[in-house]
Amino acid sequence: MSPSPKPAVSVIGLGMMGTALAAAFLGAGHPVTVWNRSAARTGPLTAQGAIPADTAAEAVAASPLVVLCLSTNDTVRTVLEPLAGQLTGKTVANLTNGTPEQARDLAAWAAKEGAGYLDGGIMAVPQMIAGPHAYVLYSGARDLFDAHRETFAALGGTTYVGTDPGLAALYDLALLTGMYGMVMGVMQAYALVRTEAIAATEFSELLVPWVGAMLGSAPAWAAAVDSGRHLTDVSSLAVNQEAFPNLLETFAAQGVSTELFAPVQPLLDRAVAEGHAADGLSRLVDLLRTGPGTGPGTGSSAI
Amino acid sequence: MSPSPKPAVSVIGLGMMGTALAAAFLGAGHPVTVWNRSAARTGPLTAQGAIPADTAAEAVAASPLVVLCLSTNDTVRTVLEPLAGQLTGKTVANLTNGTPEQARDLAAWAAKEGAGYLDGGIMAVPQMIAGPHAYVLYSGARDLFDAHRETFAALGGTTYVGTDPGLAALYDLALLTGMYGMVMGVMQAYALVRTEAIAATEFSELLVPWVGAMLGSAPAWAAAVDSGRHLTDVSSLAVNQEAFPNLLETFAAQGVSTELFAPVQPLLDRAVAEGHAADGLSRLVDLLRTGPGTGPGTGSSAI
Repeated sequence: MSPSPKPAVSVIGLGMMGTALAAAFLGAGHPVTVWNRSAARTGPLTAQGAIPADTAAEAVAASPLVVLCLSTNDTVRTVLEPLAGQLTGKTVANLTNGTPEQARDLAAWAAKEGAGYLDGGIMAVPQMIAGPHAYVLYSGARDLFDAHRETFAALGGTTYVGTDPGLAALYDLALLTGMYGMVMGVMQAYALVRTEAIAATEFSELLVPWVGAMLGSAPAWAAAVDSGRHLTDVSSLAVNQEAFPNLLETFAAQGVSTELFAPVQPLLDRAVAEGHAADGLSRLVDLLRTGPGTGPGTGSSAI
Repeated sequence: MSPSPKPAVSVIGLGMMGTALAAAFLGAGHPVTVWNRSAARTGPLTAQGAIPADTAAEAVAASPLVVLCLSTNDTVRTVLEPLAGQLTGKTVANLTNGTPEQARDLAAWAAKEGAGYLDGGIMAVPQMIAGPHAYVLYSGARDLFDAHRETFAALGGTTYVGTDPGLAALYDLALLTGMYGMVMGVMQAYALVRTEAIAATEFSELLVPWVGAMLGSAPAWAAAVDSGRHLTDVSSLAVNQEAFPNLLETFAAQGVSTELFAPVQPLLDRAVAEGHAADGLSRLVDLLRTGPGTGPGTGSSAI
């Protein structure tokens, strides 16, 4: 008996990432139909065995699972809305970068069309797809995710984060937020040492282990956030408030822009003014919450 | 033959950090004289064998090496300036948090007094002093550092960064900059996930490995900074510029302040407008340099 054939997948959007996704499905043995607004992009994939569709409608018709990877969710709408009436019974997995709100809106539209909708956040660059360190966050109906999990596994790890279709984008953006903060810190630090002609490569030998060690405190900060207990005997907001002007003064004195770090000082000042001098940095999480929502310590996990 | 006695050290300033430093010198077998503006702080140390000095002058007279750890360098000046004429032949090791400029000014003052001056940046919280992960950055005359290196080793690792007395503060602040960036990212990310009642502790299990993995790119960014070659095929400034509004929109939509991350967008916009769309994030280091100084690729390392 031969192994049962793998389910067909259609991939719409063949930028660097979409191309990597289609190639990964092909590599795992799935029949893959591809479509891109500019047909030029399909060449390399058809050489690997993909079936080129002439229209988005043809791509949708070809497979029960339609994976979208476009530049924005506006483009996703531009592609999907003309297909109204042709998506019944299909599962749309939208791996386009977007916001939770966009994902929720698209999920509602798909439901109206009788289609299943999963949203995904790809935690990898195209070069990493199908490799050991890539993973994709998924949200939407659990049974839909389970039905396609094996197919998704061709791309890398599969991390399901909840039924609310907006959650994959929320997790994705929260992870990117953590990354951007780190990037801001590293780039600003390099700018500072370069003012003294210190090689960034040599400085990075101190910086990487230092930031990595400090990152080790993140689970403890998380526990403080979840419990609402921020008191610390290690590095209080008062200590940070007092130390921070040295950074801003030194940036200015050395000819480095303060634009990325200036907003930290008023936040520290506000934290101390509001009575949190003895709390640790984790208290800042509360101060960053401006709108309604579930407060610290009041919610349970969604996963 | 008994081992030669360890050199005497005087410690001025007995806050949490100064107390930890004095205790570490005592623990390593050095005779330690201590002084603090408020005498109350000396009690626990004298119980461990420290000699309490009645005045700062007495503390300076007691040892060839005088370690200062005060709240600011203004306080250092307030303590040292009345001792003019009493510092000849002494080595002052100032481990107070400060700026490169303050360190250079104090070094010049000490030279005028016939005293040696080393500046230090402590890369640890008090609880870590004398432990395996603590280290102190030192700058100033190499022979002075070498003469006291074994004594300093009582505090943790010793990292000498150059003869310019301002360099320890510069490295210290650059490392703190990297840490603060990471902290901003982590706290903002926690604020975002908490809007959906996701436990920060569970989210941290995704966040810490993700940010740690991205931190692994820091040496490659450093190499780009040093070489001035920023072209990338992984994550260009154009891609980042396009993706960043999703973050800011989502913060606003979910009720999280954009104050810490809003300044990133105009920086990305400026980078692309100046023709760097195909470059990686490392290009931002150049854009953050506002003043004169040694440009990328033109300087050699100071260490």
